[in-house]
Amino acid sequence: MRINDNFEKLPESYLFSEVARKLAAYKSEHLGADVIRMDIGDVTLPIAPCVIEAMHRAVNDMAGSDTFHGYGPEQGYLSLREAIAVVDYRKRGIDIDADDIFISDGAKCDLGNLGDIYSSDSIVALADPGYPVYVDTTVMSGRAGEMLPDGHWSNIVYLDCNAGNGFKPAVPETHADVIILCSPSNPTGAVMTREELENWVDYALREKALIIFDSAYEAFVRNPELPRSIYEIKDADKVAIEVRSFSKTAGFTGLRCGYTVVPKTLFGADSEGRQVSLHKLWNRRQSTKFNGASYIVQRGAEALYTPEGRESVARHIDYYLENARTIRGCMQQAGYTVFGGDDSPYVWVRGKNGETSWELFRIMLEKYNISSTPGVGFGSQGEGYIRLTGFNSRENTIRAMDRIK
Amino acid sequence: MRINDNFEKLPESYLFSEVARKLAAYKSEHLGADVIRMDIGDVTLPIAPCVIEAMHRAVNDMAGSDTFHGYGPEQGYLSLREAIAVVDYRKRGIDIDADDIFISDGAKCDLGNLGDIYSSDSIVALADPGYPVYVDTTVMSGRAGEMLPDGHWSNIVYLDCNAGNGFKPAVPETHADVIILCSPSNPTGAVMTREELENWVDYALREKALIIFDSAYEAFVRNPELPRSIYEIKDADKVAIEVRSFSKTAGFTGLRCGYTVVPKTLFGADSEGRQVSLHKLWNRRQSTKFNGASYIVQRGAEALYTPEGRESVARHIDYYLENARTIRGCMQQAGYTVFGGDDSPYVWVRGKNGETSWELFRIMLEKYNISSTPGVGFGSQGEGYIRLTGFNSRENTIRAMDRIK
Repeated sequence: MRINDNFEKLPESYLFSEVARKLAAYKSEHLGADVIRMDIGDVTLPIAPCVIEAMHRAVNDMAGSDTFHGYGPEQGYLSLREAIAVVDYRKRGIDIDADDIFISDGAKCDLGNLGDIYSSDSIVALADPGYPVYVDTTVMSGRAGEMLPDGHWSNIVYLDCNAGNGFKPAVPETHADVIILCSPSNPTGAVMTREELENWVDYALREKALIIFDSAYEAFVRNPELPRSIYEIKDADKVAIEVRSFSKTAGFTGLRCGYTVVPKTLFGADSEGRQVSLHKLWNRRQSTKFNGASYIVQRGAEALYTPEGRESVARHIDYYLENARTIRGCMQQAGYTVFGGDDSPYVWVRGKNGETSWELFRIMLEKYNISSTPGVGFGSQGEGYIRLTGFNSRENTIRAMDRIK
Repeated sequence: MRINDNFEKLPESYLFSEVARKLAAYKSEHLGADVIRMDIGDVTLPIAPCVIEAMHRAVNDMAGSDTFHGYGPEQGYLSLREAIAVVDYRKRGIDIDADDIFISDGAKCDLGNLGDIYSSDSIVALADPGYPVYVDTTVMSGRAGEMLPDGHWSNIVYLDCNAGNGFKPAVPETHADVIILCSPSNPTGAVMTREELENWVDYALREKALIIFDSAYEAFVRNPELPRSIYEIKDADKVAIEVRSFSKTAGFTGLRCGYTVVPKTLFGADSEGRQVSLHKLWNRRQSTKFNGASYIVQRGAEALYTPEGRESVARHIDYYLENARTIRGCMQQAGYTVFGGDDSPYVWVRGKNGETSWELFRIMLEKYNISSTPGVGFGSQGEGYIRLTGFNSRENTIRAMDRIK
């Protein structure tokens, strides 16, 4: 059979696998080296007691004939969707209904799968640097076009983010059909302001574009001036899908749960210009190619919306933010130029002497036994930077920073 | 933005939602009606104690810093993959390695997502009648072409299954790139023989086609002459992907876990005729758009491979097979023509007087208060049939059949 040729266009290695490979090689050459991982965005704090208890109860439900749960709704259990609508939106004055919310097994899946519902020749705009999954899934779907000699893709509109614009993507001169924004940003930690998001909503309204707003890190926003949801912006419900995750807020990276908001006020157009509800399309996509997130995990997620659960989320976020602040402060003191680390678990660090990202990665690894993620892996504008994360333990974060001092 | 127009081609309602809607309407008109559900393929037996215990332990792992599990491998935990390779394949004399196996959150997802790796103009061949997800995902991807006046799709090769061929799809005269086979069949309960599968493997080798073998119901095969895996056929590892699920064998419909086998001996060709490993493509697809199944659920699935777990699977299967046999026997006695129900949880029933599927559905519902699935919902060749399932409780199955008597 004939394969999807677009896969062949993808460079061989996914960034994080490449980092892992280099780390493994270093460790095998330096047996006993105490490398502290500050590269990947995986969490370290265990799951909160109220979630653990809820999952034990859910496991017990599965053991009894009367309490057993078979196929759940593909959209997720209504009780969880209602809790999200109330706590994450309505209590913040945002008009989102429970049935606008689709529970998933994680933001990465949804970010990839959303490509199913828009046209295959859509022009996609992406922040550079950005989460590699955006580019890779765009390439796989054929929407990226061809790779140019400079490593860019011919059909992607790149939204350059650099020190000059505070690493925040600005509205482009050209047209795009779909824009993927991430705020707080992975990898730079930059958080978009209300005005910046307003510009994007205006652009999307004007260009009849769709914004996919990845707010997996929204819970890290502590500055009350900064928006946590794109729906805080007027008319965003007419142009934006919002993707969120329990991975970073509650340590669900191994449990797998997230959610995506597709307001019923959001429409696309078919090739003849007819208005089509994106809520209906996504519902059809999910009903046909997905069977809901695990009952046990959804019950666990629901516990996050109790007072105890909300407190645990706040505690987790505080912990990682404190780590990020420690990294930020220490790296600054050591003379590095640093971005992010406020309202974000990510600290974005530039080398002191114009090193490339991979050189900086190597220095950090060999000199300090700290693993980092090379910024260039997130896009060409990330060259010269590395990403450090606040997701390790307090103890390891302090130990790592003591080495820098 | 422009939507994926293929979604608009899909008929409004997914079969099972339509049945659910009609059921709800009937119940609201006949308050207190004791309708016994024999329509959907959801299971009723609770999860086996050894799986429950394993999941409790896994939940506890998540509560401690030292035992917490964050991101797992996208391909699934090796211990589970190894258990599957040994118990489901190697002990049966089939040469499948642990790393040929990809753990997923269910067969439905994989069956839909596999479309990502083959070319968008692939000709897809499907059994009629068949699981609606095959047609619907083919339509969504644009590979189905246009709907013809008779309800067929212009680019799909239909493999007609009817009483004449025992509801088993025969190799077509024409070329197909991708063939989706399901044995034991949903909805007809037909099980393909070794010779029939050999014909398909020969066809695939000759036509350079890919077989996607949906063996979600393989555990129901008790006749030792009938193959449970396509890899029992020589050279199938060069042409076939096999998709399986814990949903029906162990009641995981609400837990969400399945697996897909992509042997490293399986290759497709790119547009220039170069050989490309499908294992590599699927690995890339899963690494980029999926983050692994839930740790807790994978631990539960692993417990199915202990002696106690295997016994529980056998007990579940026995129970549902006994139900299917009861239905089959009773419907036959009552004068219906019946297929399936041996080596399968599904019983495929033809009306006595040439009724259409929906008429038969209505008669079963109104006369006996039994819900069924209209065969025509699975394809035009299903017209005149209904599907009954052995997945209800023993008690309800007997009560339902007493009404028929």
